[in-house]
Amino acid sequence: MTIRFGVIGTGAIGREHIDRITNTLSGGRIVAVTDVNQDAANQVVNQFGLDAVVYPDDKALLEDKNIDAVLVASWGSAHEASVLGAIEAGKYVFCEKPLATTAEGCMRIVEAEMKHGKRLVQVGFMRRYDSGYVQLKEAIEGNVVGEPLMIHCAHRNADVHERYTTDMAITDTLIHEIDVLHWLVNDDYKWVEVIFPKKTKHALDHLQDPQMIIFETKTGLHISVEVFVNCKFGYDIQCEVVCEEGTLKLPEVPNVLVKKEAQLRVPLLMDWKLRFIDAYDKELQDFMDSIARTGQPQGPTAWDGYIAAVTADACVRAQQTGKRESISLIDKPAFYYPPSEI
Amino acid sequence: MTIRFGVIGTGAIGREHIDRITNTLSGGRIVAVTDVNQDAANQVVNQFGLDAVVYPDDKALLEDKNIDAVLVASWGSAHEASVLGAIEAGKYVFCEKPLATTAEGCMRIVEAEMKHGKRLVQVGFMRRYDSGYVQLKEAIEGNVVGEPLMIHCAHRNADVHERYTTDMAITDTLIHEIDVLHWLVNDDYKWVEVIFPKKTKHALDHLQDPQMIIFETKTGLHISVEVFVNCKFGYDIQCEVVCEEGTLKLPEVPNVLVKKEAQLRVPLLMDWKLRFIDAYDKELQDFMDSIARTGQPQGPTAWDGYIAAVTADACVRAQQTGKRESISLIDKPAFYYPPSEI
Amino acid sequence: MTIRFGVIGTGAIGREHIDRITNTLSGGRIVAVTDVNQDAANQVVNQFGLDAVVYPDDKALLEDKNIDAVLVASWGSAHEASVLGAIEAGKYVFCEKPLATTAEGCMRIVEAEMKHGKRLVQVGFMRRYDSGYVQLKEAIEGNVVGEPLMIHCAHRNADVHERYTTDMAITDTLIHEIDVLHWLVNDDYKWVEVIFPKKTKHALDHLQDPQMIIFETKTGLHISVEVFVNCKFGYDIQCEVVCEEGTLKLPEVPNVLVKKEAQLRVPLLMDWKLRFIDAYDKELQDFMDSIARTGQPQGPTAWDGYIAAVTADACVRAQQTGKRESISLIDKPAFYYPPSEI
Amino acid sequence: MTIRFGVIGTGAIGREHIDRITNTLSGGRIVAVTDVNQDAANQVVNQFGLDAVVYPDDKALLEDKNIDAVLVASWGSAHEASVLGAIEAGKYVFCEKPLATTAEGCMRIVEAEMKHGKRLVQVGFMRRYDSGYVQLKEAIEGNVVGEPLMIHCAHRNADVHERYTTDMAITDTLIHEIDVLHWLVNDDYKWVEVIFPKKTKHALDHLQDPQMIIFETKTGLHISVEVFVNCKFGYDIQCEVVCEEGTLKLPEVPNVLVKKEAQLRVPLLMDWKLRFIDAYDKELQDFMDSIARTGQPQGPTAWDGYIAAVTADACVRAQQTGKRESISLIDKPAFYYPPSEI
Repeated sequence: MTIRFGVIGTGAIGREHIDRITNTLSGGRIVAVTDVNQDAANQVVNQFGLDAVVYPDDKALLEDKNIDAVLVASWGSAHEASVLGAIEAGKYVFCEKPLATTAEGCMRIVEAEMKHGKRLVQVGFMRRYDSGYVQLKEAIEGNVVGEPLMIHCAHRNADVHERYTTDMAITDTLIHEIDVLHWLVNDDYKWVEVIFPKKTKHALDHLQDPQMIIFETKTGLHISVEVFVNCKFGYDIQCEVVCEEGTLKLPEVPNVLVKKEAQLRVPLLMDWKLRFIDAYDKELQDFMDSIARTGQPQGPTAWDGYIAAVTADACVRAQQTGKRESISLIDKPAFYYPPSEI
Repeated sequence: MTIRFGVIGTGAIGREHIDRITNTLSGGRIVAVTDVNQDAANQVVNQFGLDAVVYPDDKALLEDKNIDAVLVASWGSAHEASVLGAIEAGKYVFCEKPLATTAEGCMRIVEAEMKHGKRLVQVGFMRRYDSGYVQLKEAIEGNVVGEPLMIHCAHRNADVHERYTTDMAITDTLIHEIDVLHWLVNDDYKWVEVIFPKKTKHALDHLQDPQMIIFETKTGLHISVEVFVNCKFGYDIQCEVVCEEGTLKLPEVPNVLVKKEAQLRVPLLMDWKLRFIDAYDKELQDFMDSIARTGQPQGPTAWDGYIAAVTADACVRAQQTGKRESISLIDKPAFYYPPSEI
Repeated sequence: MTIRFGVIGTGAIGREHIDRITNTLSGGRIVAVTDVNQDAANQVVNQFGLDAVVYPDDKALLEDKNIDAVLVASWGSAHEASVLGAIEAGKYVFCEKPLATTAEGCMRIVEAEMKHGKRLVQVGFMRRYDSGYVQLKEAIEGNVVGEPLMIHCAHRNADVHERYTTDMAITDTLIHEIDVLHWLVNDDYKWVEVIFPKKTKHALDHLQDPQMIIFETKTGLHISVEVFVNCKFGYDIQCEVVCEEGTLKLPEVPNVLVKKEAQLRVPLLMDWKLRFIDAYDKELQDFMDSIARTGQPQGPTAWDGYIAAVTADACVRAQQTGKRESISLIDKPAFYYPPSEI
Repeated sequence: MTIRFGVIGTGAIGREHIDRITNTLSGGRIVAVTDVNQDAANQVVNQFGLDAVVYPDDKALLEDKNIDAVLVASWGSAHEASVLGAIEAGKYVFCEKPLATTAEGCMRIVEAEMKHGKRLVQVGFMRRYDSGYVQLKEAIEGNVVGEPLMIHCAHRNADVHERYTTDMAITDTLIHEIDVLHWLVNDDYKWVEVIFPKKTKHALDHLQDPQMIIFETKTGLHISVEVFVNCKFGYDIQCEVVCEEGTLKLPEVPNVLVKKEAQLRVPLLMDWKLRFIDAYDKELQDFMDSIARTGQPQGPTAWDGYIAAVTADACVRAQQTGKRESISLIDKPAFYYPPSEI
């Protein structure tokens, strides 16, 4: 079975997914594309030698009966409408983050999907497919060192463009920890607090950098995340889980060990795209394989998209108030529990 | 362009490649299979849901005009005939090691390929596609720490089956170092010596284990490889290159870091198949991509297969004589130099 | 010059220092001891073969003109009186933590020492002599990666006795971070907050364990310290300083690397005494050497003892209120600035 | 008990030991010195403020009844006579390597000591006191990973002075591995072979650098040591013991971990003196403590000095012949077995 994709949004991320489906992964084919910039859409078809229809807009694309799944890679504010349209048309959806820009928008998608009656949507939270996080999750579930009590994380970027604002530390950067950490410990967030440490001289005036984000979960787990987006030295993702009988730590990215000029040196990544490049491949391959095998995607759900939106909102409030802000989710619908947990 | 594969040999390795081409990689399709065990061939077609012809033997398969490339994964002694047949038929060949069981057999393939006039053959030396070795090669070619002078390696398997004999430490195990090391430093072997250290109690009577293999290259580089196939603790590949201004070391396989019971513990691989699983994918994807892009495979050549055969022969002689054995290659044909080096 | 020591308190720590001065270090000699338990004092003299007078109490010992320096290793509540008595007698004092059990007591010592006119007192904060912290300090002062912005620490003990209470996480455990961190970044604390994460099942009912302590310094540096005293797996001290151009991390304690049973394993310390054993030697050797060379000790001062007391008080309040508590020091007297900084 | 030392040879190493005994260690005192350069001897007395007699030569010094132990730190060729004289005078001797410049000279010392009837001599092989080697030895004797089969070592110096010759790679450099490795595995050497790899451009014409030295022991253990004395990047000591159930590896020297400019960097030592600085202290403290406690030194014996001399001779022959050279020791006298092994 080959899954026929229609791609909405042919910017940088859209093109990467098109390349991936066309030239790296197995089981999928791009049969249609659209973009607000029609030229860009046409150009992509040529660039990758696609046998694909170029539609004027997502509405037209969603009417194409030859499309099995829609890949949403447009601007964030356009996601909700495309995803709702795809569900309406009964198509599978792989949607880049955010699922929608508001919690309410995410809920509308959740409700539409439940009404449809089976899972169609997967959100592009790729970290769950990273081998390091998978090893952490296995160790936690295998009870290797007992119950988790605390998680210490860092999310460091070498630098950011000048349009990056203080709230984007949450919505663009922390958003990945928000998703992966609640999945990791199978828990929900209770409150969040944001502290602004001494600011680096490398951040522009309008940007608070670094930031410390502190969560408590429903079961009392303490989580702290350093977000530092002008750390200069590299792209660096840290995660240590402190448990009742020991600790678990995400491995460093492997690289050649060089001894030179009185130092042991191991190269670090500068480009964030390379850190999770395998995870990007795996999330999309899993999306296709799961649909082919079970008729439903198995990755991050629309409900996970809703959690991320509610949590990010609380984090941004916490940036503004300097106080602990509650994170209140509605009850998780049975629809989103894995069969084994119902 | 989709490359249509005919597979000769549907044993364990053959099935893995079929699975890879069918379910993981992009750009290839299995259209024919054959195996000395016809039932096995039929079963594979069912198992992977292939739309493929089952041929009674490689001769019949090679006559199929719909086949672009042949994947040879039969017993080693059958490789030469299949590869020669494929060249005769003008088909591409991806041949698992060994290319042929004798240096003369390899030379016949080299000559047939040169007569054909362009490269058709790639040998399955996957380590050249491992990210660690690639990083080593880049560091050497980038002159990060100057000219290589010595290489210290270890190739350790947790254990081996009882039919594993002393010479297989060369032909099945060291063979990977033989290929990857001369590629790494772009040099040829001059002599080899084999030393048998104290034998582990975990080796059966008929098997000398561990072994130390010492090479000198044409330019005087010193290479030592520990081969230890009943090391019990894991599958462990080490490579350190000592250069004029520093050293380069292959990274360890990354894994979660556990602190527990008074120890820092990092899991090691036990199963050799997992160590180079990415490299297996990459070598075959590169085979397909290179053919699609340039009309010729770019990976390890028939000439590399010849080098491996000549070198392995000398190593086995050195096991028997306990002395330094010369490694004599004929002059490398211009055909096998990269265009940039001619 | 040999420094003649009178030791007040011959319990476990007192005996260790006596052993150190007698059998390991150079330049000191025990000439007098006292303990509330007179038998214990006599026994120590025999055990170490000392040529030393046993006094009935610290008052009598302090009158001995043959004593150059007093080593205070009695119960914490007795420290203040002994130290004041030693200053009164014009003797040098090496005082184990705490200098006094209250900030006011510490201030009385500070004032007495200033009145005396030159430094006599060193407090036993040994971490400043640990080679790892010294390397961190050199890297910070050498501006290796720019200005510090955040410090992430952990202080983990395998377990504690049943009399260990929640406030002792501050006064017995965190007290070392309190001293070493302000020294490390040459800054003062501004406020502290204590968070109680999910409690480990290995802690007795009366004890909150683990705890997260968060400081902000005068210059805005963010410091977080995990204190976890029933972590089971070992004695583990972590310190990472995040700076404007990179990070600095305390090295792990070196130990033999073992590959065994599918794991890389490195032994961790279980016994806290072994972690800083070199630092204990160095602090006392430095005390003796500095007095011999300059007439004054150069290690942690009475003022540092005062900082520790004020800060620990605020931390204990923060444990009780769950809120940010201010840390207010009086102005640092010129007397305690190094000559170069006045 | 204070051990009164007479020092023969007040060059660099002699002065370091004088400093150590006077200012760092406990239990010793320098009471006499001599040097072929009388001015140097006088200057040392002033420099360290010693209360010590300056003798015109070692003969005069050895007659001083107030001397308990002699520290021999003169030129290698003068060692034998001084050590024999000290034994004759019934004094303890701490002798820097080499014990004597010939195997015959070492044997004369062994015989003199046996005739004296109890151990007097300790040779300055400090590595046995390094915590890393001690951990290796404990792991081997504790059977942590079974019986040793192979040892892979490297001994790398950043650079050497221009008077350093090819044989000094054995007598000045490898000599430390020669001693520590046979102690580590409690085995004797059988043969040695020396291979000269490609020469570094950083070595002067007269010097073969690097060198590979290969040993086989009596029980069949394979040992290889890379000696590379112009490696440029640092002073680097490696030792990996491969055993029947796993491997053991000497830890790296701990240092602050710096992330900076796209690299993880850990400083390496450049100065060899710093690598074993703790071991230098411990060997001499142990010499004094053992004498005080048991009346005999417990460290490396005159017999170990003889082993080192015989082995180094064979290594130098192997450099010249390019062949395997036998290492033949006479039978080890019962005198030199630890009581437990007789």
